[in-house]
Amino acid sequence: MQRSAEAFNQYRETTPSARAVFLETIASEITQQRDVLVATAQAETNLPAARLNGEITRTTSQLQLFANLIKEGSWVEAVIDTAKPENTPAKPDLRRMLVPVGPVVVFGASNFPFAFSTAGGDTASVLAAGATVVIKGHPAHPRTSQLVFETMQRAIQKSGMPEFTVQHVTGEGNATGKALVLHPLTTGVGFTGSLQGGKALLGYAAEREVPIPVFAEMSSINPVVFYPDALATQAEQLAQTFAGSITLGMGQFCTNPGLLIGLKSTALDNFVNLLGDAVAAVAPQKMLHKGICEAYGKGRSHMFSQDNVLLVNESAVPAEMEAWPALARTAAKTFLVNPQLKEELFGPFSLLVECEDKAELLAVLKSLHGQLTTTIVGTATDTAQWKDVIAVQSTLAGRVILNNPPTGVEVCAAMVHGGPFPATTDQRFTSVGTGAIKRWVRPVCFQNFPDDMLPDALKARNPLGIWRQIDNGFTR
Amino acid sequence: MQRSAEAFNQYRETTPSARAVFLETIASEITQQRDVLVATAQAETNLPAARLNGEITRTTSQLQLFANLIKEGSWVEAVIDTAKPENTPAKPDLRRMLVPVGPVVVFGASNFPFAFSTAGGDTASVLAAGATVVIKGHPAHPRTSQLVFETMQRAIQKSGMPEFTVQHVTGEGNATGKALVLHPLTTGVGFTGSLQGGKALLGYAAEREVPIPVFAEMSSINPVVFYPDALATQAEQLAQTFAGSITLGMGQFCTNPGLLIGLKSTALDNFVNLLGDAVAAVAPQKMLHKGICEAYGKGRSHMFSQDNVLLVNESAVPAEMEAWPALARTAAKTFLVNPQLKEELFGPFSLLVECEDKAELLAVLKSLHGQLTTTIVGTATDTAQWKDVIAVQSTLAGRVILNNPPTGVEVCAAMVHGGPFPATTDQRFTSVGTGAIKRWVRPVCFQNFPDDMLPDALKARNPLGIWRQIDNGFTR
Repeated sequence: MQRSAEAFNQYRETTPSARAVFLETIASEITQQRDVLVATAQAETNLPAARLNGEITRTTSQLQLFANLIKEGSWVEAVIDTAKPENTPAKPDLRRMLVPVGPVVVFGASNFPFAFSTAGGDTASVLAAGATVVIKGHPAHPRTSQLVFETMQRAIQKSGMPEFTVQHVTGEGNATGKALVLHPLTTGVGFTGSLQGGKALLGYAAEREVPIPVFAEMSSINPVVFYPDALATQAEQLAQTFAGSITLGMGQFCTNPGLLIGLKSTALDNFVNLLGDAVAAVAPQKMLHKGICEAYGKGRSHMFSQDNVLLVNESAVPAEMEAWPALARTAAKTFLVNPQLKEELFGPFSLLVECEDKAELLAVLKSLHGQLTTTIVGTATDTAQWKDVIAVQSTLAGRVILNNPPTGVEVCAAMVHGGPFPATTDQRFTSVGTGAIKRWVRPVCFQNFPDDMLPDALKARNPLGIWRQIDNGFTR
Repeated sequence: MQRSAEAFNQYRETTPSARAVFLETIASEITQQRDVLVATAQAETNLPAARLNGEITRTTSQLQLFANLIKEGSWVEAVIDTAKPENTPAKPDLRRMLVPVGPVVVFGASNFPFAFSTAGGDTASVLAAGATVVIKGHPAHPRTSQLVFETMQRAIQKSGMPEFTVQHVTGEGNATGKALVLHPLTTGVGFTGSLQGGKALLGYAAEREVPIPVFAEMSSINPVVFYPDALATQAEQLAQTFAGSITLGMGQFCTNPGLLIGLKSTALDNFVNLLGDAVAAVAPQKMLHKGICEAYGKGRSHMFSQDNVLLVNESAVPAEMEAWPALARTAAKTFLVNPQLKEELFGPFSLLVECEDKAELLAVLKSLHGQLTTTIVGTATDTAQWKDVIAVQSTLAGRVILNNPPTGVEVCAAMVHGGPFPATTDQRFTSVGTGAIKRWVRPVCFQNFPDDMLPDALKARNPLGIWRQIDNGFTR
């Protein structure tokens, strides 16, 4: 952290275009190592080569996206209030912009060895902001993490960045992570993982003398409400789409639809059967690692041991390390009294909750924790008829989706991958998309500065050509 | 809090223009009660009528500023990424904006009975955002707080807002405040006050099952560095300006310059004498209340009991409840080894630290905690010559000021009244200016919504006429 703080003092002074070149160099170094990275990650995670190749592309695209963001430059939210000497008291010239906070700690995620790990979205957003990073590599893919780190080291050398702009530490257990969060020089933490892990990091942060934000993306069951007209008219297509979403990547996505909700009806029964068949038709595949597979097995058994939770259908019996896709159903009455049914079961599983009527549907929605996503499946007839229920549903999550499965998280400016606790620890921010950069910055106001002492983003002639808010209007 | 949550479900659905009318109605109700409010606050706080009248104007101006902000509407940060069906996988239409989080608790401040209390900046920003508020009135001015609350109740009735949009609780001690912070329905906390008070609120928040942000503005000594050429050429004028700033409102401002720093020289000695004379020439006045006056007396004695802290000059001996303006000096060597000299002493006091050389000046700057403001006093010669020191100084605070005293906090879009801990608990936000609204909102992304289901801010034809970021460019 000491090295990171020293590097930060130099790195923060780099120009946005120099940092953009650095991010692009990391991307090209990763691309050059694509084959060895895929092979290493395949050996460590059981993920198929096609998925890992896709994830590398996503990783390099994210780096390019952040490079583009800082080259364009408007993200610093430059605001200029010009002086009004005629006011009493005289109003001074005030100009604000976002600046990086300092050394940040990023924890690699187990389920995305590239896109949310060593050079993933968190790291890319930190480096774009002008902050330095210490990465805690995930112990489930240590060699992959080390190789990615080495590509970043080469990029540091090639683009002339301070040696310790990026550092990498590894280790099983919690001691290393705890020490990083507690270190006085740490100014922020990024994490994607379990509720237990995120809460532990929050706990460490609460022990600090100086508070720092922990941005942990943790736990979401991504409720999907199937409204009646959609069920009556599109059951077959919906069953295919959502079976695909539930089992995509063997359910190892934070946006996996783990909770399905509908009103009791023959249309719902028909849909449940079709969905069960479609889920059962998916062949089991290996999960990321032994720990995740065992946790899924235990969680699945625990789920089916609950009163009134019934198996709808499941796939063929899995081999070792493989997940076992399954669909369960229960009544809203059961769901409302058993909080364990609201817990995330990480894997290809979904629980369908049947509601007697609108009141019960509303009660189920109001009983839910905060979520990353919530999905409305409904025709125009449904959305007109169920407006008030949809209004309640829409308050649950950071992303509200109409007639799309929740899996598939576009990396763009409008994305919100965040949401009320326990989806994340801070619903004010997103961990995916360009908005993720806002986690590592703070606003600074410069009062009464002459132009030559101001950062470029705030100079009168706007040398960076960025969008700025001047005396309450936007201009470039 | 239960009532607040119920009111929130209605209030969040109000239009920005209806909320703007509500804020304007509060302002006009306060204006109508101006005389009785000033008289009541004068009796409770010892603040002079002129100051209280000015503060009422500031309060109503803040309400109007937030009304204007939400009428203009661009603050919701609407971002639209249109669909790209030709992509693989197809990119859905994604639109995000800021929405209010829920019931918020605001603690009134003792030193601003209007502008940072019941209907002050925190409350105005909460109501503008579309969130509801429970105000804990400050026990030092309970009748003033109650009267202001009654003006807000009238505004609620006149503008047809839900009855419990604003609620008001009072009480000595910490039990009420603790209960409010711990309540499960609370989604955020705003506070301006002491380090001890802010830390207590942070501690309560850390006990919660669901974490919430505590935005506490607490402690700052607002370091001012006087560079040599300015001291050599402007000593007399600087002494007048800064004596005025140190004693303004008897030093009861969070931006009071409590720490002055300069390089040992005859120019500095000359300035110190002039400044001491100017401070001593200020007549003592009553402080806000007995507790603050006693704390100042104790803190002042404690300061002068420290080794090598010398009195430069002080005003006439004060009468009961009055503050005792004073200037002290010490050597950097003393300052660097005694952490107590870095603590805020709330009142008309400032400590001047003399540095032997540039290295010692840098060491002093690097030893400081986070600050609300830091001020550079320097000529063009100074700013050219001391660039590297100014760079270090500029990282200390949320607002960096050149050749202005730090007291005087303009309420505008570019203002940052915030800074690294212990100035505030969250340096990512400001508590003064339009940016303060960002504390009470979270982003929500709508995916694949038809136009008629989207909030107005995100509709294709832009019915609100706001600035939006569409496919990475700003447009209205």
